[in-house]
Amino acid sequence: MIDVAIFGAGRIGKIHAANIAAQAGVRLKYVCDVHAESAAELAQRHGAQVGRVEQVLDDSSVAAVVIASSTDTHADLILRAAAAGKAIFCEKPVDLDLQRAQACAEAVRAAGVTCMIGFQRRFDPTFESLSRRLEAGEIGDPEMLLVTSRDPGAPPLSYIASSGGIFKDMLIHDFDIFRWILADEAVSVFATGSCLTDPAIATAGDVDSTAVTLTTRSGRLCQINTSRRAAYGYDQRFEVLGSKGMLQAGNHRPTEVVAATASQVGSDLPEHFFLERYRAAYAREMAHFFQAMQSGAPVRTSIEDGVKALQLAEAAATSWRERRIVSLSA
Amino acid sequence: MIDVAIFGAGRIGKIHAANIAAQAGVRLKYVCDVHAESAAELAQRHGAQVGRVEQVLDDSSVAAVVIASSTDTHADLILRAAAAGKAIFCEKPVDLDLQRAQACAEAVRAAGVTCMIGFQRRFDPTFESLSRRLEAGEIGDPEMLLVTSRDPGAPPLSYIASSGGIFKDMLIHDFDIFRWILADEAVSVFATGSCLTDPAIATAGDVDSTAVTLTTRSGRLCQINTSRRAAYGYDQRFEVLGSKGMLQAGNHRPTEVVAATASQVGSDLPEHFFLERYRAAYAREMAHFFQAMQSGAPVRTSIEDGVKALQLAEAAATSWRERRIVSLSA
Amino acid sequence: MIDVAIFGAGRIGKIHAANIAAQAGVRLKYVCDVHAESAAELAQRHGAQVGRVEQVLDDSSVAAVVIASSTDTHADLILRAAAAGKAIFCEKPVDLDLQRAQACAEAVRAAGVTCMIGFQRRFDPTFESLSRRLEAGEIGDPEMLLVTSRDPGAPPLSYIASSGGIFKDMLIHDFDIFRWILADEAVSVFATGSCLTDPAIATAGDVDSTAVTLTTRSGRLCQINTSRRAAYGYDQRFEVLGSKGMLQAGNHRPTEVVAATASQVGSDLPEHFFLERYRAAYAREMAHFFQAMQSGAPVRTSIEDGVKALQLAEAAATSWRERRIVSLSA
Amino acid sequence: MIDVAIFGAGRIGKIHAANIAAQAGVRLKYVCDVHAESAAELAQRHGAQVGRVEQVLDDSSVAAVVIASSTDTHADLILRAAAAGKAIFCEKPVDLDLQRAQACAEAVRAAGVTCMIGFQRRFDPTFESLSRRLEAGEIGDPEMLLVTSRDPGAPPLSYIASSGGIFKDMLIHDFDIFRWILADEAVSVFATGSCLTDPAIATAGDVDSTAVTLTTRSGRLCQINTSRRAAYGYDQRFEVLGSKGMLQAGNHRPTEVVAATASQVGSDLPEHFFLERYRAAYAREMAHFFQAMQSGAPVRTSIEDGVKALQLAEAAATSWRERRIVSLSA
Repeated sequence: MIDVAIFGAGRIGKIHAANIAAQAGVRLKYVCDVHAESAAELAQRHGAQVGRVEQVLDDSSVAAVVIASSTDTHADLILRAAAAGKAIFCEKPVDLDLQRAQACAEAVRAAGVTCMIGFQRRFDPTFESLSRRLEAGEIGDPEMLLVTSRDPGAPPLSYIASSGGIFKDMLIHDFDIFRWILADEAVSVFATGSCLTDPAIATAGDVDSTAVTLTTRSGRLCQINTSRRAAYGYDQRFEVLGSKGMLQAGNHRPTEVVAATASQVGSDLPEHFFLERYRAAYAREMAHFFQAMQSGAPVRTSIEDGVKALQLAEAAATSWRERRIVSLSA
Repeated sequence: MIDVAIFGAGRIGKIHAANIAAQAGVRLKYVCDVHAESAAELAQRHGAQVGRVEQVLDDSSVAAVVIASSTDTHADLILRAAAAGKAIFCEKPVDLDLQRAQACAEAVRAAGVTCMIGFQRRFDPTFESLSRRLEAGEIGDPEMLLVTSRDPGAPPLSYIASSGGIFKDMLIHDFDIFRWILADEAVSVFATGSCLTDPAIATAGDVDSTAVTLTTRSGRLCQINTSRRAAYGYDQRFEVLGSKGMLQAGNHRPTEVVAATASQVGSDLPEHFFLERYRAAYAREMAHFFQAMQSGAPVRTSIEDGVKALQLAEAAATSWRERRIVSLSA
Repeated sequence: MIDVAIFGAGRIGKIHAANIAAQAGVRLKYVCDVHAESAAELAQRHGAQVGRVEQVLDDSSVAAVVIASSTDTHADLILRAAAAGKAIFCEKPVDLDLQRAQACAEAVRAAGVTCMIGFQRRFDPTFESLSRRLEAGEIGDPEMLLVTSRDPGAPPLSYIASSGGIFKDMLIHDFDIFRWILADEAVSVFATGSCLTDPAIATAGDVDSTAVTLTTRSGRLCQINTSRRAAYGYDQRFEVLGSKGMLQAGNHRPTEVVAATASQVGSDLPEHFFLERYRAAYAREMAHFFQAMQSGAPVRTSIEDGVKALQLAEAAATSWRERRIVSLSA
Repeated sequence: MIDVAIFGAGRIGKIHAANIAAQAGVRLKYVCDVHAESAAELAQRHGAQVGRVEQVLDDSSVAAVVIASSTDTHADLILRAAAAGKAIFCEKPVDLDLQRAQACAEAVRAAGVTCMIGFQRRFDPTFESLSRRLEAGEIGDPEMLLVTSRDPGAPPLSYIASSGGIFKDMLIHDFDIFRWILADEAVSVFATGSCLTDPAIATAGDVDSTAVTLTTRSGRLCQINTSRRAAYGYDQRFEVLGSKGMLQAGNHRPTEVVAATASQVGSDLPEHFFLERYRAAYAREMAHFFQAMQSGAPVRTSIEDGVKALQLAEAAATSWRERRIVSLSA
């Protein structure tokens, strides 16, 4: 039986806690949260106890920690958990500061512990199937990748203000998709953005709509478009053009009902938001974490992947801010 | 240059006239219609002259006639045109009376003239492609055929009253599809129907909604469903289940626009009605007619096909009226 | 805490056991199966104990039983569980014999216990959404229902021999869909069938392909087509034509990947079979059972529904065997 | 009767000639081509005569000319036709040199003749429907435009060498779509490209794959991706994200057949190439030209539109060559 502690009992913490509880041979022992009531409620739901960080890290029975607390706590918790020899699952991003993130990666390497970053999209059944088929050569060599990534609506301004900006907050997932799907590294980044959905976002120094272009070592091209608002829901698509064809990953729908009326033929909107869309992905990433931890196999989304996605986000933010193409040392 | 006369300058006559005019090496010489103004207008549009039936049949330069006049004139015109040695293209049905239709077929055989019945659906690009792929063995042996055939709205009651009933008027196309796609003959027919869209149709002694089941010599099954009204437009689909898969023929849309709004993801309704849906089919059946006429090759939709579809329509009407399964001598 | 026993630890028993275990406030106490090893394995997985039928029914702490054992045991278990005052969830069919099924329904009524039949399709998210939208009047009054129900492949001949025939075994679900969706009762049934996929099925006195037509009190029409084999997988669709439009329930796919290659644009096959396709439905029907049991609200799929579906299956079998239309007393 | 001359009897000249011949009240009088045999053949097909440029421009009965000859002849013919007071339909591009193109536009303005550039995509039923619905406000204010534009295969290298490069040759259509759909002008262009499908294209100093980003005065964003090769055929899609939803223009298919086999559910590839995909658009643009010419209403695709698309193509080529963002004076 593997004993596990979770840091953070908010929205994503609850998802992870339920998925931890569903793993055979794994037990959720502690729930830690600065908000005591949330911690207590989640602990009770899964037969766990409320814990403090020190207590958890000192408890030698705890083999793994899941970090689902606010972003500004990630780096500190990673460093301490690594020092305590715990296996680590950490929500993205590692940190908003690239150097701190690199320091975390270094600490993890030094400690030799398993550390996985929560890029759950790599575990989505549709995206994973596409990736496997691409690797199997079904469309030959990949040439271009187009990523569409739109939220149903913007988060509160308070969130945006401390989010690190749209490139680190929202596009970090898309940069990880880029690296994963093309299996290649960027040599240049061009990013532009606009504030089109809510002027308050501009006031907060951010944009809500972006267009990013990456070129890779092999000359492959990638375009990413994102928006904080899509009236029709959570839009998560990408497509790869290859030398022998194209693979597209489409949106998921809650049902397969089609209605034909006097005005149109209509089908369901996409799954509402990430909790619905990536339900299976969250479950499968957690299973992957515990399997990797037990087998010693490398995790699919390492802390190095987290650092590299952050590098791309920083480069994109620089490109947008300074209105220039940013070169990356290969 | 082949000189051609057309009988009937109504809606379908205009379609055929334009398609005749578009054939290389073919000239529309005469337009005949009891309504003089319509005849004159259509003749003028294509540089033809208004003619009378006797005149046309006596004109030895006329090699072919296209019969697009009202149903009750078909048999007489076929008999006279066959006697005059003209090649004949005749709109469905041959006649509402099976014996008269058989007499026409006999006369055509005796005269040895080309005679094609306007089952235009066999020339629709989608249906024809499906048929070719089925014949090529893509889904193995066909086992079941499902036909959905719905009009956007019912014709005027006056039309219904003289239509011969829904089985002869509307389902005759579906019976032809059945024979064509399964390449098999029916041994039993079961038909039922209801009047659900307009009580006046029941008063006229007819139904507006039908469900028909046919079984074939080889034990294949076919279900046909029809309605005089589909609020979303002209619904023309069929699917074949075979031992190795399924082939489906879907509706055509005017455009490929998809709109995602806050309520649904919507696409176009089907093409409005038969003139739009079967535009290409009407053009291609006319080309086929003149090719067959010139090459001497058999036409794809012979007068025998017209007679056999009518037999099935009669059997279905009997099954519905007498509430019993009707056996057909193989 | 509600204590529950399950009878049957086979394929469907395992599904139900996991869903019972996932209900808050419900505990799986006993697992019973004639095959001791299966019972022990399933009991251990959920922290339950192996039990005998007598023991379970005598245990006053057991409030509900779930019957997932072989069909020939259903009636006896229902009668005994009703007599013992237990709430009952029973897999379809109630029994292969209509009179025995009616006796069970009578016993359940007399005992006043909650009794739900496992027509899980009514709990499928797609089907349930369609049903709600139909009830909400989105397409006006329903006029025609088309049901396509095809298995990926036939079960072993030994299963078919004791299945009660395709109408009671396979179409019983479709008859329930018919009653549920049209909210109407049949006045006539016509069924025909063929043996097209495997001659051994004919030798067993059964067919593998059927075409059924039902008419209702209100004159609505329903066509059902079924096959024991669809090379492309489990095909579970239906569509309702109404006065103002059409609602279609389409197949579910494992992923939303689309591949465009030099030969075609391809998407996933449907979910493989019922365990995959109805995973959500099985979970949701079990939640419904315990909610109804606790609230006293009527279950959505009562034992009367089980009896009525069986009546239709018998009528269809008679129609097929005797080659006649079977009238049902309204 | 309007008499018309066509310059160019090649592939696109034949399309235009047939569409001219199909206009009511319009007669194709002359066909001019440096290749005498082609001119004669096309003239004969439509009952026209072979002509020389001088003869045509001197013939006062000729009211309009259609320029479908090679790109390097466009400017000269426009200037001479404008001077002769003829209405002009000219295939894109006006010229490969921006200054020459501007001189043509100036000459056309001075002469006051109707002049339309053959951006046929604006007349495609799908694209035009999308444009109308966008203008009607169906998705609110447009924010982002994504254009996918891929050919099934690259033209011969000899063509590429004299094409003016991929930005002027292929993307000029996409730049026109950008201006038309967003009804806005670009303030910056970023373009990058790679040679991924055929190294010989790089040797010719060109690329075969491009990624372009435009920003507009209003801050709208547009991404265009193009490739000279898509193994699955001619890929012509675009989508607009607006404040209230999204409109997508999808590919057209030759048929609506869907095949479900043991491996996948497959539908047709897109229409093969531009002659098939834009058949309706070519017919409708020619009708528009003659309507505008007769009514005096402005044409939808003016020579100024041709000049502006060329400006964007030049800016994109500069951006790609000099690896920098190019600003455009608004």
